[in-house]
This record gives sequence, C-alpha cells and structure tokens, in this order.
Amino acid sequence: MKDEKAREKRTGQMRIRVRYSECDPMGVAHHTTYPVWFEMGRTELLRASDRSYREYEAAGVFLAVVALEVSYKKPALYDDLLELESVVSKIGHVKITHEYALRRNGELLATGKTTLACLDRDGKLCPVPDSLRV
Amino acid sequence: MKDEKAREKRTGQMRIRVRYSECDPMGVAHHTTYPVWFEMGRTELLRASDRSYREYEAAGVFLAVVALEVSYKKPALYDDLLELESVVSKIGHVKITHEYALRRNGELLATGKTTLACLDRDGKLCPVPDSLRV
Amino acid sequence: MKDEKAREKRTGQMRIRVRYSECDPMGVAHHTTYPVWFEMGRTELLRASDRSYREYEAAGVFLAVVALEVSYKKPALYDDLLELESVVSKIGHVKITHEYALRRNGELLATGKTTLACLDRDGKLCPVPDSLRV
Amino acid sequence: MKDEKAREKRTGQMRIRVRYSECDPMGVAHHTTYPVWFEMGRTELLRASDRSYREYEAAGVFLAVVALEVSYKKPALYDDLLELESVVSKIGHVKITHEYALRRNGELLATGKTTLACLDRDGKLCPVPDSLRV
Repeated sequence: MKDEKAREKRTGQMRIRVRYSECDPMGVAHHTTYPVWFEMGRTELLRASDRSYREYEAAGVFLAVVALEVSYKKPALYDDLLELESVVSKIGHVKITHEYALRRNGELLATGKTTLACLDRDGKLCPVPDSLRV
Repeated sequence: MKDEKAREKRTGQMRIRVRYSECDPMGVAHHTTYPVWFEMGRTELLRASDRSYREYEAAGVFLAVVALEVSYKKPALYDDLLELESVVSKIGHVKITHEYALRRNGELLATGKTTLACLDRDGKLCPVPDSLRV
Repeated sequence: MKDEKAREKRTGQMRIRVRYSECDPMGVAHHTTYPVWFEMGRTELLRASDRSYREYEAAGVFLAVVALEVSYKKPALYDDLLELESVVSKIGHVKITHEYALRRNGELLATGKTTLACLDRDGKLCPVPDSLRV
Repeated sequence: MKDEKAREKRTGQMRIRVRYSECDPMGVAHHTTYPVWFEMGRTELLRASDRSYREYEAAGVFLAVVALEVSYKKPALYDDLLELESVVSKIGHVKITHEYALRRNGELLATGKTTLACLDRDGKLCPVPDSLRV
C-alpha cells in the first residue's frame, strides 16, 4: 500500500499540445523542445507531491540540470496531443535522476533522462531535501 | 560634434544570423523571434554606451518591456544574415522608447517599437538613470 | 440565437501554465512569450470552429502574422495558471484581426492584438476562406 | 597536408553571446539553449564546407537529430561571450555524430554530442551524401 503510494508520487502523466512555434521548417517539433516538455513533466510531478518547484526555489532549494539525454524515435507534429510520462528513477545524496517517455496515441516518440543537482542559493551542492525523497 | 556623438550612442547596428530553431513550418522566422532580436539590439546599444545591461541589473536597475509593436513586411528565412538598426527614439521620466528596422541586403523586412519602464529591485517605477539619457 | 452562436465561435478561452523556460532572470515570463500564447489562443479558436489550423495549412491556406501589438500591465510569474481570452475582432477581405486579454485570477496582466494575412502556397495574399468568416 | 585540411573541415569554432531571453529565473542560460547553440555550430561547420545546410534542404537532404547528450559543468550567464567548438566525430552510412565543447575564456562550461540521421523528402533514411564525408 505504502509502496503503491510512493510509486504514484514517483510517476506522473501529463498531456502536451505541440505549439506552432515549437515546430521547425521540417514541420516537426524542434528537437530542443523535448527537454522543455520534460521540465514540465518534472514540475507536475513536484506539484503532485507536497511542494511545488516554485515553493522550493522560494525556500532556497534549486534543482539544476547537470546531464541530459534524449533519444528521438518518431517526430511529433504541430498540434499533436502528446502523453508525457515522467518518473523519478533515482535519488542520490545530492542528485535526482528522472526518466521520460513521450507518446502519441500510445506510440513511443522519444525517451529521455535528466540528472538534477540540488543547489543552495550560492550555487553550492546540497543534500536532496527529505520532502523530495518520495 | 556633441550632437553627433549623442546620435551615435542613440543608434546601433548589428548583424543577426537566422537560426534553424527560430524558423517555423512555413520555413520562415517565427514572428515571436523578432522581439528577441530587438532585445539583442537594445543590449548592444547599451554595451556601446557606458554600462552594459548586465551592469544595470547588478546595480538594481531593471528595464521591463511594457509595450511592443511589430510590423512584418517580408519574411526572414533560415540562415539569412540580417541587419538590425536600433534607435533610442524617446527618453521620458521613467520610460524609454526604442525603434527598430530589420533589413536583409538593405531591403526592409520589419519595423518595431518597444517601450521600457525603469524599475527598481521591488518592481516599482523609478526615474531613468542619467547614464541612460544619451 | 444565431448571433450568440457566431459570437461564441469568435471568442475562445484557454488556460495556460507558465513554464520555467518561459521565464527570465527577472523571474517573470519573458515578454516574447506572450505572442506565443496568443498564437495558442488562435489555434484553439480555430479548433472550436469547423477546421483546425493544421487542416488549413494542409489545404494550402496559410495565416501569416503581419502586425503585432502587446501591452504589458503586470508580470506573469513561473507556474502561474493564466486565463487567455482570444476574440476575432475583424475579418477583412484578406486579413483577420484578433484581440487578446491575459488574466490571472481575473486580474488583467496584458492585452494584445494581431493581424493575420491569408496567404496561398506561393506566399501570395488570398481572400479569407468563407469557413473562417464566423 | 590533405589530412590537415580534412581535420579543419571537421572542426569549427564560433562565438556566441548569451541572450537575455535564453536565461531563466536562476539567472543562467536555460539548459535547453545549449542544443540550440550546438545546432548553430553544425550550421557553421557546413557553411565552411562546400554547401550550407539550407542548400542541402533545398536539394532534398534533411539531417534530423536522433540522439542528444549534454553534460553541464558550469552555468553560462547572460551576456557572456562563449566559444563553441564543434567537431564531426563520426560519419556512418546514414548517420553523422558531432561533439561539442562550450567554453568561456577557455574554461569548459559544457560538452555535448548529437547523432543526426540523413533523411530524404519522405522522411526515409538515406546514405550520407559524399559531400558531407569530409
């Protein structure tokens, strides 16, 4: 039961409509838009937990992306309604790893992975707060 | 002589290469990119004066855009090398107006106008610093 | 009754969550993001009508922004949930004018106006299709 | 001698000024901007060779990003003047790999890697053109 709740907190789903301004002359979403969407997935994951990322920043806790990986399988098109799944896959002492799967009607378009480092107001590494250890 | 120098400080030229990520499915620069370029023009104008905008912000002076107008005449294409002319057209008590002309090989592609309000750290209106009264 | 339906088609509401990547070092949504949101408003307006903009482009009808005006009243902040109202305010022979109001909890943050020109595949002006004359 | 010329074609340097609109509430360049810069590096690499990417697209050859990796070491700040080094590190049958190093005053800020797939007008994989085999 507890595990189920924990897992729920670690996984989030959201729908994303591809904007015209996100698409390039090939008529598909530009590849740099995918990590923008991943960041939205992380924001929604946090919102579903106890505190929003806005509240963390206000409290002096910053999560900076230190590594990014994206694998593009099929293009997303303008006006597509996409499903983004975001998962907290690992929580270390000062870093958090998320993984992402982007789909359209269930078909996998891309996967991704980010590593965030926890920083204080001075930009120094600090331990991941307990409230983020879901 | 002094007038000439003043005018020089009030007008700036810069060249801008259109990025792939700035272009949309019509194959032209997305209309929201033009005000990004205008902001670059303002930054270069300030750099040519006594202080950079980065230094103003560090000193607690923020310039926030309160009005924007753009007139699009011909599309800018991917990889075009554009010429942007930026002019300080009016300096009021708390506001500064800039005007812009974007050209490709001398041909006018767009014109624009922005009004910036001078804000302090608390987001309150404050007088335009003398150093900006070129 | 018919008028009411027509007006309904001419006005659209949508909610927009401010993304982290849309905010600048002042901690507020960058001013160039507002016209991106306006474009989303136009897209949703069209979707509520008979055809989506994607379908228009597929049919060889392109709507290019030829004029943009934005008036910024209060800043939108990261993670704010905004309400965007978009209205078709004028339909001419080859051009369409939209007006926008952006609010947060009912408070007006910005207003805007765009003029779109109707273009064919060759980028030439063409009459606004009847299906857009709502 | 020939090797030296080949290597020269495989490596490119460019300077990039960090734009205000590219920076986020942490006051640093948003992490999704780095791959935008990498794409600019690729464009300049191609320009230094026989044909520009614009010419390739006109000829029906599209280079789509299928994999992206970025490692962020130190933040880039607004108005920084960065040096981007881009290298063609591998050319396969249908794919090209580039590697990137982003520096400020010689200090390494980030490294990156992209894999591009060569596509024809129908989005199908096609062999890398000989002119790209530098």
